[in-house]
Amino acid sequence: MSTKKNLNIGLIGYGFMGRAHSNAYRKVGNFFDLKYQPVLKAACARNEQNAKAFADNWGYESVETDWRKLVERDDIDAIDICTPNNTHAEIALAAGAAGKMILCEKPLSMNGPEGLKMVKAIEKAGVPNMVWYNYRRVPAVTLAKKLIDEGRLGKIFHYRAKFLQDWTISEDLPQGGQGLWRLDVKAAGSGVTGDLLAHCIDTAIWLNGGMDKVSAMTETFIKERKHNLTGKVEKVGIDDACAFMARFKNGSLATFESTRYARGHKALYTLEINGEHASIAWDLHDLHRLQYFDHRDQGIVRGWRSIHVTDSDHPYMGNWWVPGLQIGYEHSFVHQVADFLEGIAKKKPASPTFRDALETQYICDAVLKSGKTGRWEKVANAK
Amino acid sequence: MSTKKNLNIGLIGYGFMGRAHSNAYRKVGNFFDLKYQPVLKAACARNEQNAKAFADNWGYESVETDWRKLVERDDIDAIDICTPNNTHAEIALAAGAAGKMILCEKPLSMNGPEGLKMVKAIEKAGVPNMVWYNYRRVPAVTLAKKLIDEGRLGKIFHYRAKFLQDWTISEDLPQGGQGLWRLDVKAAGSGVTGDLLAHCIDTAIWLNGGMDKVSAMTETFIKERKHNLTGKVEKVGIDDACAFMARFKNGSLATFESTRYARGHKALYTLEINGEHASIAWDLHDLHRLQYFDHRDQGIVRGWRSIHVTDSDHPYMGNWWVPGLQIGYEHSFVHQVADFLEGIAKKKPASPTFRDALETQYICDAVLKSGKTGRWEKVANAK
Amino acid sequence: MSTKKNLNIGLIGYGFMGRAHSNAYRKVGNFFDLKYQPVLKAACARNEQNAKAFADNWGYESVETDWRKLVERDDIDAIDICTPNNTHAEIALAAGAAGKMILCEKPLSMNGPEGLKMVKAIEKAGVPNMVWYNYRRVPAVTLAKKLIDEGRLGKIFHYRAKFLQDWTISEDLPQGGQGLWRLDVKAAGSGVTGDLLAHCIDTAIWLNGGMDKVSAMTETFIKERKHNLTGKVEKVGIDDACAFMARFKNGSLATFESTRYARGHKALYTLEINGEHASIAWDLHDLHRLQYFDHRDQGIVRGWRSIHVTDSDHPYMGNWWVPGLQIGYEHSFVHQVADFLEGIAKKKPASPTFRDALETQYICDAVLKSGKTGRWEKVANAK
Amino acid sequence: MSTKKNLNIGLIGYGFMGRAHSNAYRKVGNFFDLKYQPVLKAACARNEQNAKAFADNWGYESVETDWRKLVERDDIDAIDICTPNNTHAEIALAAGAAGKMILCEKPLSMNGPEGLKMVKAIEKAGVPNMVWYNYRRVPAVTLAKKLIDEGRLGKIFHYRAKFLQDWTISEDLPQGGQGLWRLDVKAAGSGVTGDLLAHCIDTAIWLNGGMDKVSAMTETFIKERKHNLTGKVEKVGIDDACAFMARFKNGSLATFESTRYARGHKALYTLEINGEHASIAWDLHDLHRLQYFDHRDQGIVRGWRSIHVTDSDHPYMGNWWVPGLQIGYEHSFVHQVADFLEGIAKKKPASPTFRDALETQYICDAVLKSGKTGRWEKVANAK
Repeated sequence: MSTKKNLNIGLIGYGFMGRAHSNAYRKVGNFFDLKYQPVLKAACARNEQNAKAFADNWGYESVETDWRKLVERDDIDAIDICTPNNTHAEIALAAGAAGKMILCEKPLSMNGPEGLKMVKAIEKAGVPNMVWYNYRRVPAVTLAKKLIDEGRLGKIFHYRAKFLQDWTISEDLPQGGQGLWRLDVKAAGSGVTGDLLAHCIDTAIWLNGGMDKVSAMTETFIKERKHNLTGKVEKVGIDDACAFMARFKNGSLATFESTRYARGHKALYTLEINGEHASIAWDLHDLHRLQYFDHRDQGIVRGWRSIHVTDSDHPYMGNWWVPGLQIGYEHSFVHQVADFLEGIAKKKPASPTFRDALETQYICDAVLKSGKTGRWEKVANAK
Repeated sequence: MSTKKNLNIGLIGYGFMGRAHSNAYRKVGNFFDLKYQPVLKAACARNEQNAKAFADNWGYESVETDWRKLVERDDIDAIDICTPNNTHAEIALAAGAAGKMILCEKPLSMNGPEGLKMVKAIEKAGVPNMVWYNYRRVPAVTLAKKLIDEGRLGKIFHYRAKFLQDWTISEDLPQGGQGLWRLDVKAAGSGVTGDLLAHCIDTAIWLNGGMDKVSAMTETFIKERKHNLTGKVEKVGIDDACAFMARFKNGSLATFESTRYARGHKALYTLEINGEHASIAWDLHDLHRLQYFDHRDQGIVRGWRSIHVTDSDHPYMGNWWVPGLQIGYEHSFVHQVADFLEGIAKKKPASPTFRDALETQYICDAVLKSGKTGRWEKVANAK
Repeated sequence: MSTKKNLNIGLIGYGFMGRAHSNAYRKVGNFFDLKYQPVLKAACARNEQNAKAFADNWGYESVETDWRKLVERDDIDAIDICTPNNTHAEIALAAGAAGKMILCEKPLSMNGPEGLKMVKAIEKAGVPNMVWYNYRRVPAVTLAKKLIDEGRLGKIFHYRAKFLQDWTISEDLPQGGQGLWRLDVKAAGSGVTGDLLAHCIDTAIWLNGGMDKVSAMTETFIKERKHNLTGKVEKVGIDDACAFMARFKNGSLATFESTRYARGHKALYTLEINGEHASIAWDLHDLHRLQYFDHRDQGIVRGWRSIHVTDSDHPYMGNWWVPGLQIGYEHSFVHQVADFLEGIAKKKPASPTFRDALETQYICDAVLKSGKTGRWEKVANAK
Repeated sequence: MSTKKNLNIGLIGYGFMGRAHSNAYRKVGNFFDLKYQPVLKAACARNEQNAKAFADNWGYESVETDWRKLVERDDIDAIDICTPNNTHAEIALAAGAAGKMILCEKPLSMNGPEGLKMVKAIEKAGVPNMVWYNYRRVPAVTLAKKLIDEGRLGKIFHYRAKFLQDWTISEDLPQGGQGLWRLDVKAAGSGVTGDLLAHCIDTAIWLNGGMDKVSAMTETFIKERKHNLTGKVEKVGIDDACAFMARFKNGSLATFESTRYARGHKALYTLEINGEHASIAWDLHDLHRLQYFDHRDQGIVRGWRSIHVTDSDHPYMGNWWVPGLQIGYEHSFVHQVADFLEGIAKKKPASPTFRDALETQYICDAVLKSGKTGRWEKVANAK
């Protein structure tokens, strides 16, 4: 173990994602045998007291209140951006310029053009970079990828994904401010499209390749909400719900839907792929299972198989407990850190890179545009 | 029981639906206490041998090989149309003119204008009429209707429905001819839109009211198939898959999808409605269950309820067995006959009438048009 | 069809089972191509008015109020016994003596010795005989039998079955009388053991062979109930709940449990078999599905398969609708009639015969005895 | 946070449980705001190299190869026993004598009398003590406890639990030695009874109170296996499967079953409780859900509720992520550590204590005895 190299992390933001990432950095070395060991070097937040409490809780060695200072520190190897979407670009550009590796929360940027700027900067800097689309690393989803890559599904006909929540139905919920920046279009850029559909899109292009065009419908059910920062009732700028149809480059048809107004669903990300020979389905509420149907099974015993993805030969699972004992949401982040660290050791980028995430950004742009034009919109080329 | 009146049925067509209806006529009186008793008076099919075999099997008293003769017979009270879609209009117009009641298989017609003609004719004739959108009478779906009508869901935000099958994936499957007329655009009018989505639409407008506009995507995956009637390889004219987005008049957003290329799904009609207070979900593969989520349940014990719709206070179920013992697909037809007969007794139309079904037809038209234009299309007014 | 032979049925009793059987007789010829056609010749009940109403509803040609007369009628080929358990023996002995075929509701008898008398009589009479353990004919259960007989499971280690209900929890429910004779030990012989566990046992010995010995626990939760016939509060004589362990002759271990005090379960008959290579599970609340796990599936895609038993190559299902469209509870009776009629045509007994059912009776006897002695009890030999 | 007190842990054993506990100690402070912070002071294992590798991986400050030395160290506050069952007593007695707190893996001891000795010693020492029956701290199970304690179920009629595995079906699997000591009766004391049923029993007595008597059946399917330590084929001494019936002191009836020969089940611990008003069910393969049925729900919408136990008002869940995001197996250990630490702070024992675990031991003894005698055996009194 003495041969492990330290990788000093400077993390900006201390919200939900700050916690998820910190937990992942702390755990990864206990469960994965890696060349690099993340070190919680510094936590950064504008409010010093909050920063200190967060650092203290998670064992960060130091605290910064100005991310520019953090970015300049010589003892930091990688910057982890866990701040609201409207700050990603500025931080990433500075971090790239300072030669730091970057791990950026999703979505990459406020929109495609901004994302392109970030991609160019990071590629010019030549540093390892990754965006936290963590669902690629849920073992059941990774297993789906493996089955698809092995060609088991054959030609793909259909892809469908939904991300359904129900936490903003009350009219009394304010927009903006601490913990609620996702409801403020100025901080978030969009509503469910960037927050939830971006996840669905990232998984989809990973599993099923690129998209040609999309046709969308968006809605804001509650038109005005009190804004926590101004204290006034203001027009709501985000999309509460968004559905879109898509055509993939491989000829398959897709439907996507996301909303925060689906009673009974807390965070129900579901996906399904129908191929010529086999189909796959998964949902986040029971993330440790993969549903698999293979038409080549003998007819009388053919049926959807509920695979409890906890065996040692399932992706990542050999590193955890024993068969039958499930892991949870947080582990997807541990896996992503493990892959990032292995990527550094092997000098191979861990997906999704900024450029991979730009593709999602372009799709989101086309979706939001189509929501306005009511027409099919082409997806810009991110490659 | 001696007070029962006979209702003489003349049924045209002897395929899948001919069987389903005949079974319903035979059973309804055993389980429902009704003023009218259907009598299997005559079965009609072009091929006399087939007609006789069918009549013999189901106990029809006589046989016709020309539906025009059947329609003219004085001893027939009601004509049941179970023939391919392209024959509905002609038969219905003649039956209406002859003053017969009509029970017509779905979809009502090849398209909206043809349907309108049928509606006008039947309304002028003033005879009881009904279209066999049988899923309204699955007890779990009827229960959903009841819960919605009681206002339990509150304002509706989302409706989504799918009808997924996988039986036409093979390129070797021919189009047209006996048992395969659904794949022949000349006989069917459209593919999954008229065959499957029409069911989804009928239920949707029943549960959630009318639609304003739709935006659709259609696809024919296998472009050419051997035609069974001509013996030649011909261009396939039907839609193999169709997805569409819709806006309901009540402000809710909807997504619909149907395909015959979804491996693993035999006849998976699913629907879900999300309201302000409660949500409902149902699927045809387990048709005897209704999923219900009520946000007003106490928080710590809130969850989706899997209602086994087999109690005597559930719709129609008091007429069958005892709690816990499920019924199946065929019973939806029995219920529809029961309601039709009760409608005659009470001189109240049983839904869906031809006019109700016209609304579905107009939506299908808009969907198919949008699939071509790539734009949102308004739904014509059927009322 | 003119070659069909009539089989004249005389049915005794008009309760739940009388309805289920009558429905089966009426439907079987529509869906199964058989040499024999059941004819509803006579219905018998002590109360003439009830008998007439029942006969009228189901289309029985005549009515009897004395089963002895029915048994003597020359125009009756088969006697169907749907009366309370304490009358089975007397009727069966008379019917056998009169040379009638017998279809007897389960359980065969009040106890083993009585059952043995019936078996001897019927075998002496040499007439076709069958006991209505209908769950053998649920297609998913029949499929399970097929898979087991093909040796797919390998050596069997475990069998477990439960039959859980919740309809007698209220203390106010009376015992005895119309519709409640199952709660009256004098009419029923026992409680859940003869009513519910007998079903589980019949399926078990069919699927897994005979039992050597059992160890049971029985309980009567509510000790006294008003008796509907006497009008007095009387001691309850039936078992409200019964659980037992068993050792099968093939070396497998089993647990069985039944109760009418399991809140939330209306008629949840579940069974599971674990073999060396594969396992099978089924439950009555979703009777159209079979769960199947095969360890020989490739590891990473191994999981329980949920088989929707509605394909044309599934047992009995080719006679019904199309794949994906489920049948229900009542169809198990149709299948049993079909098999009985085919058995007559082929001169092969349809299972379970009286002798097969005697084995269940002996096991019930051993279970009830063990519930009293608190010891393992040997099962008497029925072969 | 500076006010936190350190609690120095000395952990013995480095297997599966050593990992699970170490992970819990490391994480608990990040997610729970507690007075005490566990410090990984020393890891102990006979093989120094293994001990060092383990310590290095988990961050233990030091290593011991003799547990007696560890127990004597002044800088150790609590001894965590993660060694095979046959070593628990000796270590615990020494640790108690040295005045250390003790956290002992389950089962407490090889049998009841040995357990009683441990209980007496620890109670005499007066130190905090706990046994790692971790399933009490799965949030869904803790929620079940809460619902029961609130009286929601009413009088309890039935309890049933199973723990099914399938990992020892192969005859080639050896017994004994590294990772396989659970198959060696000398190290484990028993087979599934102590390993798996002990979990079921611990939860059961926590949820449903004490047991009066039991009647059991045990089996060893594979009679001889190669022993890894001796290299010889030896008689297998453990029970491969064990089922038992029980009577609880509250009048309810129970069935328990465990086996390692149930194909398709990796670690399927299931439990169900049926009360007068409500029922509860849970299973380890989807541990983040609780099934709840409440008969007091309105009839037409009554059904089993599938509660996704991830809300902030669910037990422990406010400390983790956001609603809809599930935790896994390992978190039950974190919760148990949290409760233990809070117990120290509040000077209230965290359950189950050694004495609580003794009750489970006595039940296991009665079960194993009954498996031999074939009779009902009384459970000794642990209180």
